[in-house]
Amino acid sequence: MQGHWSDPGRRIGRMNPSQKTGREIIAAARPGSLSAFPEGESMENQSASTMHAFPDADRAAVYQAIFNRRDVRGQFLPTPVPDDVLSRVLMAAHHAPSVGFMQPWNFLLVRSSAVKQRVHDVFQQANDEAARMFPEGKSEVYSRLKLQGILESPINLCITCDRSRSGPVVIGRTHIPTMDLYSSVCAVQNLWLAARAEGLGVGWVSIFHEKALQEALAIPEHIVPIAYLCIGYVSHFKDKPELEQAGWLPRLPINDLLYFDQWGASDPGQDAPLSEALREMQARIQQDQVYPR
Amino acid sequence: MQGHWSDPGRRIGRMNPSQKTGREIIAAARPGSLSAFPEGESMENQSASTMHAFPDADRAAVYQAIFNRRDVRGQFLPTPVPDDVLSRVLMAAHHAPSVGFMQPWNFLLVRSSAVKQRVHDVFQQANDEAARMFPEGKSEVYSRLKLQGILESPINLCITCDRSRSGPVVIGRTHIPTMDLYSSVCAVQNLWLAARAEGLGVGWVSIFHEKALQEALAIPEHIVPIAYLCIGYVSHFKDKPELEQAGWLPRLPINDLLYFDQWGASDPGQDAPLSEALREMQARIQQDQVYPR
Repeated sequence: MQGHWSDPGRRIGRMNPSQKTGREIIAAARPGSLSAFPEGESMENQSASTMHAFPDADRAAVYQAIFNRRDVRGQFLPTPVPDDVLSRVLMAAHHAPSVGFMQPWNFLLVRSSAVKQRVHDVFQQANDEAARMFPEGKSEVYSRLKLQGILESPINLCITCDRSRSGPVVIGRTHIPTMDLYSSVCAVQNLWLAARAEGLGVGWVSIFHEKALQEALAIPEHIVPIAYLCIGYVSHFKDKPELEQAGWLPRLPINDLLYFDQWGASDPGQDAPLSEALREMQARIQQDQVYPR
Repeated sequence: MQGHWSDPGRRIGRMNPSQKTGREIIAAARPGSLSAFPEGESMENQSASTMHAFPDADRAAVYQAIFNRRDVRGQFLPTPVPDDVLSRVLMAAHHAPSVGFMQPWNFLLVRSSAVKQRVHDVFQQANDEAARMFPEGKSEVYSRLKLQGILESPINLCITCDRSRSGPVVIGRTHIPTMDLYSSVCAVQNLWLAARAEGLGVGWVSIFHEKALQEALAIPEHIVPIAYLCIGYVSHFKDKPELEQAGWLPRLPINDLLYFDQWGASDPGQDAPLSEALREMQARIQQDQVYPR
């Protein structure tokens, strides 16, 4: 392990962005060593771009968490999750962005077998209903999918949104009232990525009647359960999302989702390099499982 | 830079989780070299825990992105964002989790000054209304806050949610209809963290009448604009969230937000180590700006 710890450029334990590491100073002073710049960029622009960028290996680690994260349902191990690991992923969630800094989330940790069983019953009822909503061919495929690991995962966690936190008028929520719900979702995603780095699988279960879930966990009516997560170590992470692997739906071509300046407006020509970069990147992901770093 | 690239344990360019690096194998074989385990854990448990965990330095990089991410409003530089950088952060967004793998997002890239100006006007109108909603003392503070960088940031990006994508019945959205909106929020957070690693600032502007924003961008009525983001290189990242630094609201103590097995139930005694770990961690963050890694 010492290779990392002795590397003077690693910014371990130094999060204050006003200080610079040797690596940052070197990167800023030697823009030519970076390949990311279109030719003709000025020196000044180049140093602006590299000034706060992570060193390449750190950036790659962030992308690895993003591209290697999976929604885990079937591979949980009973291995307990140590308190220090759990506290780090919870703290990551607590440092999500929140509208008006309202931090509307609560973290309801479920480890009691009896409570898990109650939540599982709530899932089961909704899932039976759900199976009947799909057309015939899809309904059978649906019933074969494993959609939750409530009982097998050592930790369940409900992340909620208290819409009344910090009073009725919230900066940034004055016109789009759902912003507080979105803040709690950001907390979920922070936790999910932190968990991936810790080697923990996370599965988001959403097949519940909200009211029944609230009852099972004694959550008051005005508190919105945003996500019910199953968390634990796993035997393996799948190469691709399960629904992609199962042929339920394909990964969409990103260029089909990209518009320029107005909805529906495609690449106006000047953006050919961006479209081309995205096309190549997606081909490498799909064909060779080589992800950006 | 070569220190990272020549490090045999770095998993650069190798995202397939079924392969193991030397570092992973060593970590699994030498559980004693890791400090994260409570004493008395079995060997088997320990290897399960370390099997898929990132090497320490990579895990630290993920936490650095999470804890060092800021909602940027005032520090944008005009430096252009290279196509390869932009394509990586967009691809990170496209690899967010989505309910039923529906990938409900679109990415509307705004770089035209005229369109930015139109969006800025839409913001201005809503912001004037918002200022009047706060009580007297807070209203003045509100008016002094810089809440957006629409015109200064080289790239604006609207991430949307197409609620009709992949048909009316979606796995996992059968009972909680907002799950598709939440998927698009996960895309926002993925992009935000990737951007931080790239040294790019991101600011989420949410003070708009939704309808007016849709008109400015020609977004159809049935498409929900989830986030309007300002993106660009920055002069600096602030040490703390601006609203925390400005004394608008404090960071909440995480232990006050944590419940056990039922809403409102506090630490049942057995969880004293977890509560203590969180308390210490938060104290270190608040007092010394030392973040988990």
